[in-house]
Amino acid sequence: MSSVAALPERLLLGSGPSPVPERVLRALAQPTIGHLDPAFGALMDEVAAGLRTVFGTENRVAIPVSGTGSAGMEAMVANFVRPGDRVVCGVHGLFGERMADELARHGADVVRVEAEWGRALDREALTAAVAAGDTAALFVVHAETSTGVAQPLDGLADACREAGALFLLDCVTSLAGHPLSLDESGVDAAFSGTQKCLNAPPGLAPFTANARALERVDDGRVGSWYFDLSLVLAYWRDADGAGGDAGKPARAYHHTAPINLIYALAEALEIVQEEGLDARWKRHATAHETLRRALAELGFERLAPEGEQLHPLLAVRVPEGVDEAEVRTALLTEDGIEISGGLGPLAGKVWRIGVMGEGARAEAQHRLVVALAKRLGQPSTAALAALADGWR
Amino acid sequence: MSSVAALPERLLLGSGPSPVPERVLRALAQPTIGHLDPAFGALMDEVAAGLRTVFGTENRVAIPVSGTGSAGMEAMVANFVRPGDRVVCGVHGLFGERMADELARHGADVVRVEAEWGRALDREALTAAVAAGDTAALFVVHAETSTGVAQPLDGLADACREAGALFLLDCVTSLAGHPLSLDESGVDAAFSGTQKCLNAPPGLAPFTANARALERVDDGRVGSWYFDLSLVLAYWRDADGAGGDAGKPARAYHHTAPINLIYALAEALEIVQEEGLDARWKRHATAHETLRRALAELGFERLAPEGEQLHPLLAVRVPEGVDEAEVRTALLTEDGIEISGGLGPLAGKVWRIGVMGEGARAEAQHRLVVALAKRLGQPSTAALAALADGWR
Repeated sequence: MSSVAALPERLLLGSGPSPVPERVLRALAQPTIGHLDPAFGALMDEVAAGLRTVFGTENRVAIPVSGTGSAGMEAMVANFVRPGDRVVCGVHGLFGERMADELARHGADVVRVEAEWGRALDREALTAAVAAGDTAALFVVHAETSTGVAQPLDGLADACREAGALFLLDCVTSLAGHPLSLDESGVDAAFSGTQKCLNAPPGLAPFTANARALERVDDGRVGSWYFDLSLVLAYWRDADGAGGDAGKPARAYHHTAPINLIYALAEALEIVQEEGLDARWKRHATAHETLRRALAELGFERLAPEGEQLHPLLAVRVPEGVDEAEVRTALLTEDGIEISGGLGPLAGKVWRIGVMGEGARAEAQHRLVVALAKRLGQPSTAALAALADGWR
Repeated sequence: MSSVAALPERLLLGSGPSPVPERVLRALAQPTIGHLDPAFGALMDEVAAGLRTVFGTENRVAIPVSGTGSAGMEAMVANFVRPGDRVVCGVHGLFGERMADELARHGADVVRVEAEWGRALDREALTAAVAAGDTAALFVVHAETSTGVAQPLDGLADACREAGALFLLDCVTSLAGHPLSLDESGVDAAFSGTQKCLNAPPGLAPFTANARALERVDDGRVGSWYFDLSLVLAYWRDADGAGGDAGKPARAYHHTAPINLIYALAEALEIVQEEGLDARWKRHATAHETLRRALAELGFERLAPEGEQLHPLLAVRVPEGVDEAEVRTALLTEDGIEISGGLGPLAGKVWRIGVMGEGARAEAQHRLVVALAKRLGQPSTAALAALADGWR
């Protein structure tokens, strides 16, 4: 046996991956079948429908890109952005920086609109930047996983429509955990990840695009063969043309899909459907606020101001006198609980605590608070009372 | 429950995915842990070591790229080929065509050296093309999955060294099933897939590169953020620098690795190690020749001539009078056995039968031959005798 069986169990309360339910692991381990098997094709349709629901869209195209969340970013840029395009990119954390980097590699003329890490971007600054030139696209991160900030989206689509620009979104950490409806917000294309609020293993990037975005796809001239939507969608297209352009052949071989990961995603989407998206959003909001109050009792204050918080990720300032790396490591290796440290300018200054799917439950938070109070040498009474109160 | 649990079981004897052993499925379904967890780091080292063994290389860099086999192709081109580079590309099947397409999208000056689908490329033609200009790289497909042909590699590395060109290889279908030693053949970089002779689920591309190839990686200027090896290797680098450049920090976050797929790969590599690579190659050779003889008794002749056959994939001509699509579909939906049809110019003319890992076993072949004889309305006696003889 490899050492896989000896791996420790962890309670995943970091920035992702999040706790994967037993049901999803069982689905993952169903025997592999062929990527062109009609039985798999039926499952692909089920996944596409489930993705439409969580994205809040009626787009025909809703697929898992065959790679982790960042592969979704790469697919978005490869298909919708051309070298020389003026692209306004909101940067208020690591994932905005990442997109700005990717856009520059792709030859785009990147116009950065920045905010302090830990704050949302200013809407006026974004819309003014879009209007200030011949803008091909606006890109923003809905859920900044590096700071725990949720970006308000209102007003952005109108500015893009007026400028003839696409509105592109990273919703890796918000999908199925924080209120989001792409169609209501007028988003043209978005990507996400499976290892956050969907509670599936990492390895797929849920992706959607509307007809307006797909017009930009330049058949056969997209720089990337692997991510070329004109090819990928020929595989995801069903007999009715859903999942791709109607009128072209269905299920044409492109690359071998990551079959078992798609099994896991199907089961994860089914779990979301059983709970209901609204109820799931509400549970995440409750879980976030409850944990915030409990951690405040232990001396941790949230980085994001009220109104800008991202429910699935609570980033808190580590108080003076706490050796953040030591405590975080002890939580992992001694208590089996993973939380995440800060990135970039926030390294050593914040913890990022996941409130994602099965991690947004009273039991998980109770275990974290008890362990953390013990590691800090503090009484847990007030924090546990806050938890009990919030989950009442 | 989603419909995953209701999926049919299939005996996967097509061009891949191949049969995934129960042990590998169990490993796949181990609880997800974090991509920066030290326990996962230890498993990454185990995987890198296992990949070095199957690739036949002492390269420090041996990693699974986070995508299916074609993502490995994309990573190779993004990192080692620059726009304007003269690249000689062998084309003797679909996967050579695919690479030529990818190279052209990337702006390379593609020099095609072709052979008929079903034959190997001529060595002299390849070396002459390499010598005929300022060649940056030679690319060949070791295992043409579209035709079942294994490309001889001898003499190619010398031509590349003389020209200052990189020798780049697609070994998706040969890795761990057909004799291959990258170091002995002087290959500078290669990619593969997990869903062929390794018998793991699809979704990862085993990838390796030597120092000569890595010199081409242009830090921060690779067109693709997702596949930029200067970033990917910072994550795979262990404390000793193995898996990446020494002297840089280990396990630096890039993207979230597909954790559970890496579990499955670790277990699959362990199975190869238990059998031994030489023994595994011999078993595949035996399985190929045995099935070839059995199918010849049913009227099917191999496409590849003797000496050019790829052990893990037996492509056979479908005799006149057999409705290939109808028989193949009945095998799948009635008998639960997947075999693959032809691609491109061979569509409707050949079947491609996988002889990969657990598919290269007497029991699997027996089941196929019995079902096929029945579908064809032929007696199975002579074919089964050939099987029994070959597996004696």
